[in-house]
Amino acid sequence: MHSSESSEVEVKDVKNAGMPRRELLRYFFAPKAIAVIGASATPGKIGYQILYNLKRRFKGDLFPVNPKQEEILELKCYPSIVDIPEEVDLAVISIPAKFVPEQVRLCGEKGVKAVIVIASGFGETGEEGKKLEEEMLRYALYYNLRIIGPNCHGIYNPRTGVDTPFIPERRMAKPEPGNLVLVSQSGAFLGALGDWVSQERIGVSNLIGIGNKVDVDETDLIDWFKDEEETGIIALYLESVKRGKEFIRVCRETSKKKPIIIFKAGRTESGARAATSHTGSIAGVDAIYDAAFKQSGVIRAESLEHMFDVIRAFQRQPLPKGDRVAIVSNGGGFGVVCADAIELNGLKVARFTEETYEYLRNRFPPHYGITNPIDLTGDGDKDDFKDAMEAVLKDENVDAVILGIIWQGVVLEDEVVEVLAKVVKKYDKPVLGSSPGGEFSSMMSEKFNRLGIPHYPIPERAIKALSAMVSYVRRREEFFRDEE
Amino acid sequence: MHSSESSEVEVKDVKNAGMPRRELLRYFFAPKAIAVIGASATPGKIGYQILYNLKRRFKGDLFPVNPKQEEILELKCYPSIVDIPEEVDLAVISIPAKFVPEQVRLCGEKGVKAVIVIASGFGETGEEGKKLEEEMLRYALYYNLRIIGPNCHGIYNPRTGVDTPFIPERRMAKPEPGNLVLVSQSGAFLGALGDWVSQERIGVSNLIGIGNKVDVDETDLIDWFKDEEETGIIALYLESVKRGKEFIRVCRETSKKKPIIIFKAGRTESGARAATSHTGSIAGVDAIYDAAFKQSGVIRAESLEHMFDVIRAFQRQPLPKGDRVAIVSNGGGFGVVCADAIELNGLKVARFTEETYEYLRNRFPPHYGITNPIDLTGDGDKDDFKDAMEAVLKDENVDAVILGIIWQGVVLEDEVVEVLAKVVKKYDKPVLGSSPGGEFSSMMSEKFNRLGIPHYPIPERAIKALSAMVSYVRRREEFFRDEE
Repeated sequence: MHSSESSEVEVKDVKNAGMPRRELLRYFFAPKAIAVIGASATPGKIGYQILYNLKRRFKGDLFPVNPKQEEILELKCYPSIVDIPEEVDLAVISIPAKFVPEQVRLCGEKGVKAVIVIASGFGETGEEGKKLEEEMLRYALYYNLRIIGPNCHGIYNPRTGVDTPFIPERRMAKPEPGNLVLVSQSGAFLGALGDWVSQERIGVSNLIGIGNKVDVDETDLIDWFKDEEETGIIALYLESVKRGKEFIRVCRETSKKKPIIIFKAGRTESGARAATSHTGSIAGVDAIYDAAFKQSGVIRAESLEHMFDVIRAFQRQPLPKGDRVAIVSNGGGFGVVCADAIELNGLKVARFTEETYEYLRNRFPPHYGITNPIDLTGDGDKDDFKDAMEAVLKDENVDAVILGIIWQGVVLEDEVVEVLAKVVKKYDKPVLGSSPGGEFSSMMSEKFNRLGIPHYPIPERAIKALSAMVSYVRRREEFFRDEE
Repeated sequence: MHSSESSEVEVKDVKNAGMPRRELLRYFFAPKAIAVIGASATPGKIGYQILYNLKRRFKGDLFPVNPKQEEILELKCYPSIVDIPEEVDLAVISIPAKFVPEQVRLCGEKGVKAVIVIASGFGETGEEGKKLEEEMLRYALYYNLRIIGPNCHGIYNPRTGVDTPFIPERRMAKPEPGNLVLVSQSGAFLGALGDWVSQERIGVSNLIGIGNKVDVDETDLIDWFKDEEETGIIALYLESVKRGKEFIRVCRETSKKKPIIIFKAGRTESGARAATSHTGSIAGVDAIYDAAFKQSGVIRAESLEHMFDVIRAFQRQPLPKGDRVAIVSNGGGFGVVCADAIELNGLKVARFTEETYEYLRNRFPPHYGITNPIDLTGDGDKDDFKDAMEAVLKDENVDAVILGIIWQGVVLEDEVVEVLAKVVKKYDKPVLGSSPGGEFSSMMSEKFNRLGIPHYPIPERAIKALSAMVSYVRRREEFFRDEE
């Protein structure tokens, strides 16, 4: 086999010689030119879908590679990557596993900097596949290029138009540009999560599927996005972490700048067994992960839902300065549930200043509840909400506010949404909301979401998200203190 | 005051004399005639909305009571309830608190069997209000009538058309008939929950707001619905339980027949304090509730969301015979997450019989995962799903199935929904599903829901619901064993 012979060549005058491996990552996200090796002319095939998506979105040059075709989607086709006359920064390889290493070698010859390998059939299937991975990796090191994958969906970047997840858009809406990078070890989940964030209007800098992570792993990516300006939140679905010590060091550094939220699956014995046959990873003992995440400031999500709940809070609201929470709602039961959740999640029900109490006492009728939780009852209207929110946001004993609107009340005007969105913007304190209910409530929550106040179906989820913010802020302060 | 004098009358020839107090409850849900005391001719007023709703839905006779009106909504108006020439089973009183006791007395004179008191301003506001409650209760006992409320929304029964929650339908869709009775101590939550079940297509036998529960309490209602044939599931939002011992006895008896699911708020010190000012109730020590719920077979919901998750499972699927769970999905990560959640929630990842393994081995290509979790990968189509589901549903080592469909796969046909709904109906084992994702996934989940397979945004919520079913079945078996 030609590939294994050439791996023994010793001359090191390769085109990427001398470029720092970290710097090479840039070419995954902002390449000037992309080649698709295994581009197909047949709609429905993965090699077609990838080229099709890239043609629609990617702003640079695009070169299909397929020895059997002259032209695909009106783009000139090349028999091999080395035949392309222009420079190529990123190659996407979508051919069966056994042919991949040779193509990686050719990418090296060509001076490609970044390679995404889509195919499965590698380490997750056993020894044969592991050997193919090792061969790929040897070329990656020899030619100094980086590989994402194999067994992955690659990258979606709404700004530069890199778009390799081969999912029909009918089933997966692509999210808008934003400050979240979402990394997934599972391909199927990358699609589902991408679709989900899109529906939830969470903007992304990148979606990245890392699959078997033969070269680029979670630590590389966290380290990269630490300094990347368009990214403010880093979230990962992981089944394993490869380089424990380095991972902790990088996460600690990164957490000083931006939050890292991880949902780690394979927590139990049964889950770990399932993870091995999925991405070939050894999930490891969960308690060790727990400790490592704590040490490194990582926010551990309990579920994918929890991960998104936390992301939305970070994306839309300022960080809290402390743990004292005010509750403003028009539902007595809502207040009770919030008070419980605040205490159960390590936060505090704020005690207002005397000034605030006096204001509330004068402003509202006696049947309203004015000790925290504030209960505006079924009689609360938009002005009541406005004044109550202003009062608690101004209060120096309040660090954050949970807003609860029960839409089944009779007198409350729809316009309270716009009124409150304005009030909240005036203060630098996080406000998270909840409006339990059906269709009407969901519609109004969606309005709040669009105006920047994240809303959750139940208040407990808002409070858990707030609690994650408070923990993050505390951990970050500790890290800075440790340095002094 | 006339009212307190008459309570000292000793003659006991009242119209309802001799009727068992439990039997009187029937008249709340299936009255032949209803009077609305405080009916209003002014749209927007509560006394108008109640009459309006009843006129639209209630199938029996309807009598507005208001001394200042001749006719409201084309119905003849009476100056007092005692002036109505026909028998009245149920009276809805919607007038300010201080006038209520006298009207209860008149209801007693008239022989009314059931009274719903809407107004607030009673026990939750202090001593004055407490006295009004005591007065009401004295009449209720003297005349042998039952009271729901005060400070409540009353009852919605889609079959008989009793409909007193005064919420505009634009903001609260009313649920269809079904087998769930939903009881709420909080009025605002009753509206929000009613709207929510309506959106989730959970059918109800009754929605009931019990407010300050001066007479009818949670124990009365659970005891009543134990034997009521249209009700199969009993769910309650509570801030307190009034008669502890009786509550436990009734719940134990009821749990042998149908599940009781309770979300109890006021768990923490802060929550309990908030509950007192909301419904005047003493929330009590949470550990005691926990023990009482366990002793009595009550399923304790962690949140309102969890309560609905569990309700949907009970309403749509048969009870599991054991705790061994199969996972069938087309997402490797999905399987890992499920295996974790199964173990963390006290269930078991099933070990298939040799026969099942052999079948799966022959039926599927080698890159599919066939040890539980079954992973049909991105290549899985509707026939793969059908055969995998049949195989595990047939397997004697499997008690329940978690179905995961990642719609972002490429080849899977939309029709898999109908195909699987048919398969699942053939077997008497619970199947709960999850399809994480955005708009398309939600639409397909909704289809599954309609065809009777409950779907949840994340698999963990499906598995928690299943775990509640397994606990319920176990507890029930213990209760029957204890009897022998």
